[in-house]
Amino acid sequence: MRTTTGWQAAGRTALRRTPLERRDLRADDLAVRVDYCGVCHTDAHALRDHDPQATTPLVPGHEFTGVVTATGPEVTTFSVGDKVAVGNIVDSCGVCAMCRAGQENFCHAFPTLTYGGTDRHDGSTTLGGYSREYVVRDAFAYPLPSGLDPAAAAPLMCAGVTVWEPLRSLGVGPGSRVAVAGLGGLGHLAVKMAVALGATTTVLSRTRDKRDDARELGAHDLIDSTDPQHMAAARDTFDVVIDTISAPHDLAPYLKTVAMDGTLSLLGYLGPVTVEAMDLLVGRKRLSGGGSGGRPATAEMLRFCADHGIAADIEVLPSSQVETALDRLRRNDVRYRFVLDLSDLD
Amino acid sequence: MRTTTGWQAAGRTALRRTPLERRDLRADDLAVRVDYCGVCHTDAHALRDHDPQATTPLVPGHEFTGVVTATGPEVTTFSVGDKVAVGNIVDSCGVCAMCRAGQENFCHAFPTLTYGGTDRHDGSTTLGGYSREYVVRDAFAYPLPSGLDPAAAAPLMCAGVTVWEPLRSLGVGPGSRVAVAGLGGLGHLAVKMAVALGATTTVLSRTRDKRDDARELGAHDLIDSTDPQHMAAARDTFDVVIDTISAPHDLAPYLKTVAMDGTLSLLGYLGPVTVEAMDLLVGRKRLSGGGSGGRPATAEMLRFCADHGIAADIEVLPSSQVETALDRLRRNDVRYRFVLDLSDLD
Repeated sequence: MRTTTGWQAAGRTALRRTPLERRDLRADDLAVRVDYCGVCHTDAHALRDHDPQATTPLVPGHEFTGVVTATGPEVTTFSVGDKVAVGNIVDSCGVCAMCRAGQENFCHAFPTLTYGGTDRHDGSTTLGGYSREYVVRDAFAYPLPSGLDPAAAAPLMCAGVTVWEPLRSLGVGPGSRVAVAGLGGLGHLAVKMAVALGATTTVLSRTRDKRDDARELGAHDLIDSTDPQHMAAARDTFDVVIDTISAPHDLAPYLKTVAMDGTLSLLGYLGPVTVEAMDLLVGRKRLSGGGSGGRPATAEMLRFCADHGIAADIEVLPSSQVETALDRLRRNDVRYRFVLDLSDLD
Repeated sequence: MRTTTGWQAAGRTALRRTPLERRDLRADDLAVRVDYCGVCHTDAHALRDHDPQATTPLVPGHEFTGVVTATGPEVTTFSVGDKVAVGNIVDSCGVCAMCRAGQENFCHAFPTLTYGGTDRHDGSTTLGGYSREYVVRDAFAYPLPSGLDPAAAAPLMCAGVTVWEPLRSLGVGPGSRVAVAGLGGLGHLAVKMAVALGATTTVLSRTRDKRDDARELGAHDLIDSTDPQHMAAARDTFDVVIDTISAPHDLAPYLKTVAMDGTLSLLGYLGPVTVEAMDLLVGRKRLSGGGSGGRPATAEMLRFCADHGIAADIEVLPSSQVETALDRLRRNDVRYRFVLDLSDLD
């Protein structure tokens, strides 16, 4: 086994600097020195839900960038020294209809998650990117395009691809009218991408003082989602509403802003949602969901971001301050993504 | 005023043969002798919910065919003797974005319903097609194509256009994989239309003995929706699921049968529905709604049905047996639509 160091949950929420083992490289594996890892809401939820008595360790982190330090004998597409990026899945069955369609994120046999997943070969629990080294199958590492800052690019691998997928699959382009509900880690990237795709882009936010921020991100307008009059004026206006709000919320006001045959894409909240059928009926509107992306979409997203100079707005903290990052994330006190610098683990 | 006879609610659920008044023809009005009127689930719900103490009368019926008996002075597109069909809306504002787009059914000022609506000119409550005469604006009457049986065509005007709209707007055609959940008034027309559009069409029904019926309607298969194994085998299979089930039901098993980027179109049940965001996320699936259609879609649907010999499978009863029809409809004891013959009102 290889050894490294990472931040592992040692109680319900506390992370402790811990020596970790990584597997010896298989034929198609890369060893990656993790330089930067984004702090995602999923990490906070996983820590909250983690049983301190559990025998399986928890090391969060599923959006990271780094440098290849070793390769297995069959790896041909990466060399030592290459900059790479890894997202929230690291393997899939490869043979089901979804995998064959390049949607490994929807693998019928369930994709192997970057942390808390079960390795398909040795059955071990995967440990995430809050660590100095990760070992990953070459097919689930992506070359980091030159020109993308490695720290600011890390959040593209989860937050970025999650909003990219619906924007692309719903055909957003010049002339599209897009609204982004919630201006956080996902939302701010959705704004940048929608604008770069040529869409007229509006932010729906209950935080009116984010108007200047929205404009700086390229948005054409911000509507105060708590103002019924302004929301009513936006009725039937948007071809696509990208809903990145992570807390439970009433979808009705947002559905009303969707144009006929348009779609509300639910990305931030993963629990049960209730809608009035009438709110879908009138205007023949659609409610959709999404999360993460397959390999082709992830690679396409990275190229697009490099071409358009898109990366996350981040605050970089040394990984020793991971608890500060998580605390502030829980209070939404970040514009817009924390990224851990893992070099302090050396 | 003109006088006619119809079936009016005189208690919470009982209909009584009653003399009715119809307005004198306005410049763009037609008087229509109603020959056949379909019995829709909406009628049963309206009667159930009707307050017997209400001062507004209730005459149900919003899918009917008949013959023009008089025309207002500005009517140019219809003549006395023409066969016509009328559906569930009889007017709209005409100036909002939805009306301009030919989606009068989504009129922002709310369309005037064929019964229980409020006339836009005199403020009276509209009385429906369970009567021998109806007076309607010419723009909301449709020529009944020759070759369509007037009785069997009546249900096309509500049930038919309601399933036609999603089939068309979702691009169903040769190669599409369509499932129809629930084989009743809406469902059996959805099967016929989907088959005629060239789709491979499957019925999802809890009534296994409808398999022969489904085949006769042109469906390629019937899956017993109560059999988890068969439903699991249909996972991610259908581009479009037309859900015509009128009772509250769990959407999860049906959503699982939707293919990636496919749509579950909710048409039969109009209350609140709850879905797990994860069931939308995995496969990037869509939940949509629908009901009725605009003028262009209604005219297109009638032409399509005439071209393909499609009409409802009906049981015709004299209108004096309307209570029998409603009772049996409530027990789902009809394959697949009751149509009232209103000639007994002469």
